[in-house]
Amino acid sequence: MTAEQPLPSSRDKTLFTPGPLTTSLNVKQAMLRDAGSWHAEFNAVVAAIREQLLSLAGVSRDAGYEAILMQGSGSFGVEAVITSTVPRDGKLLVVVNGAYGQRAVRMAEVAGIEAAVLPFPEDTPADPDGVRAALAADGAITSVIAVHCETTTGLINPIAEIGRAVKDAGRVYIADVMSSFGAVPIDLPGFGIDFAVSSSNKCIEGVPGFSFVIARRDELLKTEGYARSHSLDLLDQWKGFEKNGQFRFTPPTHAILAFEQALRELEMEGGAEARARRYRANHAALVQGMRALGFREYLRPEHQSYIITSFHYPAHPAFRYEEFYQRLSDKGMIIYPGKLTDVETFRIGNIGRIFEQDIRYLLEAIREALQEMGVPPNEFG
Amino acid sequence: MTAEQPLPSSRDKTLFTPGPLTTSLNVKQAMLRDAGSWHAEFNAVVAAIREQLLSLAGVSRDAGYEAILMQGSGSFGVEAVITSTVPRDGKLLVVVNGAYGQRAVRMAEVAGIEAAVLPFPEDTPADPDGVRAALAADGAITSVIAVHCETTTGLINPIAEIGRAVKDAGRVYIADVMSSFGAVPIDLPGFGIDFAVSSSNKCIEGVPGFSFVIARRDELLKTEGYARSHSLDLLDQWKGFEKNGQFRFTPPTHAILAFEQALRELEMEGGAEARARRYRANHAALVQGMRALGFREYLRPEHQSYIITSFHYPAHPAFRYEEFYQRLSDKGMIIYPGKLTDVETFRIGNIGRIFEQDIRYLLEAIREALQEMGVPPNEFG
Repeated sequence: MTAEQPLPSSRDKTLFTPGPLTTSLNVKQAMLRDAGSWHAEFNAVVAAIREQLLSLAGVSRDAGYEAILMQGSGSFGVEAVITSTVPRDGKLLVVVNGAYGQRAVRMAEVAGIEAAVLPFPEDTPADPDGVRAALAADGAITSVIAVHCETTTGLINPIAEIGRAVKDAGRVYIADVMSSFGAVPIDLPGFGIDFAVSSSNKCIEGVPGFSFVIARRDELLKTEGYARSHSLDLLDQWKGFEKNGQFRFTPPTHAILAFEQALRELEMEGGAEARARRYRANHAALVQGMRALGFREYLRPEHQSYIITSFHYPAHPAFRYEEFYQRLSDKGMIIYPGKLTDVETFRIGNIGRIFEQDIRYLLEAIREALQEMGVPPNEFG
Repeated sequence: MTAEQPLPSSRDKTLFTPGPLTTSLNVKQAMLRDAGSWHAEFNAVVAAIREQLLSLAGVSRDAGYEAILMQGSGSFGVEAVITSTVPRDGKLLVVVNGAYGQRAVRMAEVAGIEAAVLPFPEDTPADPDGVRAALAADGAITSVIAVHCETTTGLINPIAEIGRAVKDAGRVYIADVMSSFGAVPIDLPGFGIDFAVSSSNKCIEGVPGFSFVIARRDELLKTEGYARSHSLDLLDQWKGFEKNGQFRFTPPTHAILAFEQALRELEMEGGAEARARRYRANHAALVQGMRALGFREYLRPEHQSYIITSFHYPAHPAFRYEEFYQRLSDKGMIIYPGKLTDVETFRIGNIGRIFEQDIRYLLEAIREALQEMGVPPNEFG
């Protein structure tokens, strides 16, 4: 190490991102073990996690639902659901107002699944009446997918009302609840959701490594022969769990042990409602503080989730995002770039093991960074 | 906890399995960090790992090779290669003498890829002349996949000689080197391998969470439009790394930090050759000790890898595998069930952070378990 290099900090930088997140030390410490992936002790952990996920979704096996874990990132789970549940001659309607809707379209395309796109502007929630009209106009559509919290912007889509339109038309409903599950209330039966997908490293605050699907069993059982991928075959994966409690292929054992602990800590916190309160408080402190510094949100407040928030770049010639990001990183704070093509934004997430105090430190770091860059806070409107 | 329940041991059970493995404490401790998956510091780790994998394979970018990491288990990596590199109108020849060859056939089938099977008995290495004849007889075959170490039994296939047959016929050669890479010498250019696949939790002794592919760049670049899955699209994944050093979708950050440490420890041990020596010594101690107890290996020694070994059940009426397994588990030792349909075997792996002393403890536990079951050691031949 030369004299030029900075000493590493005593702690990790705080992640104000949509995941991977800052997790608790206990969650990470749960990974200090090597579990046998075929052993009864590990299978018992997997079984308990599957039960707890159903419970967190407000459903149960008795009520006709199944929880299925799938190796890979959250997107692998979304693709598993799309390519395993749309019939061979089926057609998928994708409700799109952001990058994750677009990704679902791409997944269908690559898998050779016919897809129709129902687009909305990126700053506007999807219109359930539009879904209703699209389904009325095209009887070939068998399945609909909508994204709950579009992480592209932080926008919340009306998945309950979309669900009503889908169910009134008798189609299969897939909800991408990736960055909302566990912290934004979701009523699977009430919303008519047949397949909901989320992942280990979002609001349950585990580490990345797998996704999970909450499925209506009767819809799942209809999908025999639909899968376009062996690895991502949702029904076959479920059958594996049913047969002997095991994953068909090697599971990310450490990430699963971390998830067991994360679920324990979610319960200790008071469940999804308590977690939602913390995230709401984080979000309120963030927006209030950012406005006080002169920033403006990209979305109107009524469309904004309390998960992640997009902010416009300051309208000041001295502001350069890369420098801003680097200065915050040097202060131990990691924010997230924007993902919009036509508007310059950056994003700040407030999920993970993050509290209002962390938001206040971030706001202080942002104030300092602006001053260092010669961008006077509250004067760049 | 009731009085009936045993106290948990102070340490994890030792895994005599083909992975997930017993790993070093330092490898696991590398996971006590939350890294930002888009941050430069993490991208630098990914870049370094990709370089080191090429170096471990004895190749380089300058020599025309690329290393690509893929989320999910090792099988996800095998499927990524099959479904991303066999042309849309191509045909895959699968050399099969175990469950992993069969799995490759199933992957092709589910993805709608035409596959021809070249079967060999499970106790017999694949015959390169058979491959040569199959390729001569069927000009439609574009690609060939063979498994190096068939974990089903522990058998080693002659992937060098198979490679010569494949290259003489001008076809693309995929080698599943899942449980051999890093501990069994593989000469990618010399063997004619275009795509080699392994995973994080095998001989490099990381934790499960991703696979990796060493690819010949010119063959990789020919595969535009071949992928049948967006998530498992090998070329697109590589383009993502090239574009900005990032995974397209959320990576298993913790498993990757563990892998960085595992690669460091592989180097500390003296590289792949030193690791091979340790595994060879483990295997020699295992076979010698098991024979002394009266066990017989399933494979002939000349076909046997030093990775994992299949043993016949003792021919004694008091032997029940489930009880044997449970007694060993109670003594802190996890062995692996057999995977053959027609012969009753169990398997013992000797890879991972395991030394000859661990093998001796296992042999002592096996001796005790046999005695407890009333199966007299060395008398059940």
